Amino acid sequence: MSTYTLGLDFGTESARAVLVDVTTGQTVATAVHPYADGVIDERLPGMDRPLPPDWALQNPADWIAALERTIPAVLAESGVAPEQVVGLGVDFTACTVLPTTPTGAPLCQLELYRAQPHAWAKLWKHHAAQPQADRINELAALRGEPWLPRYGGKISSEWLMPKALQILEEAPEIYAAAATIVEGSDWIAWQLTGNLTRNACAAGYKACWHKVDGYPSPDFLAGLHPDFSGLYTEKVAGPVVPPGARVGGLTPEWAARLGLREGAPVAAPIIDAHSATLGGGVTGPGTMFLIMGTSTCHMLMAEEEKLVEGIAGVVEDGIAPGYFGYEAGQSAVGDIFAWFVEQGVPPAYHQEAAEQGVSLHQVLSRKAAALRPGESGLLALDWWNGNRSTLMDADLSGLLLGYSLTTKPEEIYRALIEATAFGTRTIIQAFTDQGLPVRSLVTGGGLTKNPLLMQIYADITGRELAVAGSEQVSALGAAMLASVAAGAQAGGHDTLAEAAAHMAPPPTQVYRPQPDNQPIYDILYAEYRKLYDYFGRGGNNVMKVLKRLRQGRREEE
Amino acid sequence: MSTYTLGLDFGTESARAVLVDVTTGQTVATAVHPYADGVIDERLPGMDRPLPPDWALQNPADWIAALERTIPAVLAESGVAPEQVVGLGVDFTACTVLPTTPTGAPLCQLELYRAQPHAWAKLWKHHAAQPQADRINELAALRGEPWLPRYGGKISSEWLMPKALQILEEAPEIYAAAATIVEGSDWIAWQLTGNLTRNACAAGYKACWHKVDGYPSPDFLAGLHPDFSGLYTEKVAGPVVPPGARVGGLTPEWAARLGLREGAPVAAPIIDAHSATLGGGVTGPGTMFLIMGTSTCHMLMAEEEKLVEGIAGVVEDGIAPGYFGYEAGQSAVGDIFAWFVEQGVPPAYHQEAAEQGVSLHQVLSRKAAALRPGESGLLALDWWNGNRSTLMDADLSGLLLGYSLTTKPEEIYRALIEATAFGTRTIIQAFTDQGLPVRSLVTGGGLTKNPLLMQIYADITGRELAVAGSEQVSALGAAMLASVAAGAQAGGHDTLAEAAAHMAPPPTQVYRPQPDNQPIYDILYAEYRKLYDYFGRGGNNVMKVLKRLRQGRREEE
Repeated sequence: MSTYTLGLDFGTESARAVLVDVTTGQTVATAVHPYADGVIDERLPGMDRPLPPDWALQNPADWIAALERTIPAVLAESGVAPEQVVGLGVDFTACTVLPTTPTGAPLCQLELYRAQPHAWAKLWKHHAAQPQADRINELAALRGEPWLPRYGGKISSEWLMPKALQILEEAPEIYAAAATIVEGSDWIAWQLTGNLTRNACAAGYKACWHKVDGYPSPDFLAGLHPDFSGLYTEKVAGPVVPPGARVGGLTPEWAARLGLREGAPVAAPIIDAHSATLGGGVTGPGTMFLIMGTSTCHMLMAEEEKLVEGIAGVVEDGIAPGYFGYEAGQSAVGDIFAWFVEQGVPPAYHQEAAEQGVSLHQVLSRKAAALRPGESGLLALDWWNGNRSTLMDADLSGLLLGYSLTTKPEEIYRALIEATAFGTRTIIQAFTDQGLPVRSLVTGGGLTKNPLLMQIYADITGRELAVAGSEQVSALGAAMLASVAAGAQAGGHDTLAEAAAHMAPPPTQVYRPQPDNQPIYDILYAEYRKLYDYFGRGGNNVMKVLKRLRQGRREEE
Repeated sequence: MSTYTLGLDFGTESARAVLVDVTTGQTVATAVHPYADGVIDERLPGMDRPLPPDWALQNPADWIAALERTIPAVLAESGVAPEQVVGLGVDFTACTVLPTTPTGAPLCQLELYRAQPHAWAKLWKHHAAQPQADRINELAALRGEPWLPRYGGKISSEWLMPKALQILEEAPEIYAAAATIVEGSDWIAWQLTGNLTRNACAAGYKACWHKVDGYPSPDFLAGLHPDFSGLYTEKVAGPVVPPGARVGGLTPEWAARLGLREGAPVAAPIIDAHSATLGGGVTGPGTMFLIMGTSTCHMLMAEEEKLVEGIAGVVEDGIAPGYFGYEAGQSAVGDIFAWFVEQGVPPAYHQEAAEQGVSLHQVLSRKAAALRPGESGLLALDWWNGNRSTLMDADLSGLLLGYSLTTKPEEIYRALIEATAFGTRTIIQAFTDQGLPVRSLVTGGGLTKNPLLMQIYADITGRELAVAGSEQVSALGAAMLASVAAGAQAGGHDTLAEAAAHMAPPPTQVYRPQPDNQPIYDILYAEYRKLYDYFGRGGNNVMKVLKRLRQGRREEE
């Protein structure tokens, strides 16, 4: 009897379920459910009062609806019997958190609180807690908090502490009423099993948890607000478990609602980007996984914990149990190309695309592919949206030099691609300089469809670059974790490596560095790094001066 | 009886005659004659053999035809009588030189030589003598030639020495046959009067003449080629006279051919850009004249001779007698905006221009005018075609920084305008740092029609910026020189200052620095200068590295 696991992937606008054959890795059915309320950033459902700027919420009822729609759908489509489904895995955006009652009811579902925005789930891209994040970073730096360097010296407004502090300060009654504040991912697992756990991935990358040191201290929290000291001991309590650990079995109620077997193991969840790493077949050290879309996330595992400059987080058991998971990032990649295509390309190119029935990206890529490295005479710094790794500086901005009166759009397009590849090479170098090996690369995401871009990344990084075999790497990763939660005896796998060997399809393509191009790119990379250090490390602060002037400020505050 | 002078302006594609009232400055008639052979850069007239790359010639017969067409035309149009025309002035492109017989017949008009390209007039933009220029610069630097620093340490392939050396090396029979090698301007005056003189403007700016030191020595010339030592003593002989000096009177033959009075004074010619300075009303120190088109020339007069960094030339009597004339330049200005409009603006803007029936420049200018200084967050180095003044470096290239994902085309357009204005401010500062005052600016040329650009120049330079009152500043300057050659007694003027007072119309508009904008531009200019020095003076040679890679070279030669 074939066995299957369910991978449940909760995204920003929709959720997806995949049903995967545990032995062959074949995805036998897929279903997608768009959230009815989508991203709530204008007003609460059914209410008139507008939300303040930078708010972004979700409705947990949408998540439940997604379970109830997609799981029966994939069972029906595939004809797989309930007893063949040996486990469920969940990946989720993060930090996406909600306050609940002691039994897990979202506060936003209580009549008493539903008009209160702070009672709803704060989506990862809720950025209204920036003032709280600023104060947390300031105090943590002042006190020399030991957890701060693990996050590159700064935490984001998207993370749990700022979001929770914002609730406490702006809606103390909600904070008081919240028995717990919980990631959407862990909340789903809690719903399905009745057990509240915290997955090490979200806890480590978004809530400042450390396997040995635990969470930031009550003493530190009290320095932010007298009523905040119990955040972790009271509101974020519960065991921290590595992704793929068994949270529990499906409750009879949920088994009935979903048409699954009672007691089917539910795996400890994982953040979607980290799940994609597993779905890309990367379950241990030496291979970096890149999710390349509007921005790029770089995932790497290693045997050791090291402080790597500008790495957004290092978490033991953060991606796969037994390894330290490292996460780095470039804050704009596909976004830069999209900006250029929208703002910087003259009509003749648009016309050519229309005539050929292809995208402007394709026209530019084809023309850019005809150029040899160095031919454009251009070099860029890919900081159109600041620099995440390795400089962690949002006030940096983009640079392009080498312009001449004969510079062509395709030359700029290629220079922008090259710049993002130099950015990735810089991140790789930050790891290898610390003795953490990066031998090859696996990629997933929308940009993998551009062969020119892929080849440039291989040439510039000097490493083989494989394109992940699955188009649904996140959901597949969740299904792999489900197989591990089940274990081999129950028709799953005992380790993630085994799961990957069976369930992660081989790469659709492997790009190899072209020996002719590498020496030229080495020269260009050296020049990139000179500019990187000069503009990024205080040699010339012109970008910060310009940012201030742009905001209408003349002097440093 | 009103008196008039003729201003004859010989350009690249055509010549123009203006007839100007000496007392009121009114231009009473204008005529333009396009050269039949235009710029000869593909093949000689009536011949099949293609010219080599970088060649650019003119046919002196076209200049004569222009005299014969335009002068009778303006007389006829205006009804002015021959005796009312009290003088003729000539301005001309330079260095535009031709070899002639002892009596002034162009060698290209002799049957013996007409198939030989070197017998024709080499136009200013003939760039095929670059190897000769390189060797001249190298040897001059090696020998520490005293004239070299007056030209910023390097002379151009456009100048007389390289052009003459090219004739000698590639067509020694032409060089031997040439009794003289003469500027087109001086050749015209020679034709009209029978007297061969050399105007101090062309001699100083293009032939390395100095009022005290004379020309480069035979010894130096011999170091370039054993037969070259007599260049100045034999081929470029003749008195050097300041613009506006009386070369002689119109010969009876020419008076008859043109319908003018025999003996009418012909003024010593001047280069067109320098003539424009006079036509713009600038006849002495303290006011800089800017001719702003595809590139910008900056003209300034001063009481003293100083070495100013990166100034293309300083010549006593070079513009107006009695003053040292300084010439600086920016190698691309309007060209940069034209490049951007052609290569960097998306369809919506083109459509808007078409719908409104205006140019894309106007659409961008209007949108850019709505921005406050600093609002774009962008800063550029205006080196799309290298940097002429103050760095004299053709291997530099353009830079734009401060890009974000919200950067708009009009923001880039404004940043490009600002960058060229910072370039002009840098040139002004080079003069004032040497104690040469620049109190205000007068401009002429196509870019003066853009009010946003003019205002930005006033704001950034912190100086009043007047737009010259005449649209034909070069031809008007020639007419002013003619009035001085005539003198007050003969119905002209005794000095250029008097001529300007009567003949140069008041500015069409004066732009004044806006006090609110200046402090912000001071901050931006300081940042511009930091980048200027860093990339332009060896702090970071990335632009040269990129140029080499663009040319397919990896290492410095």
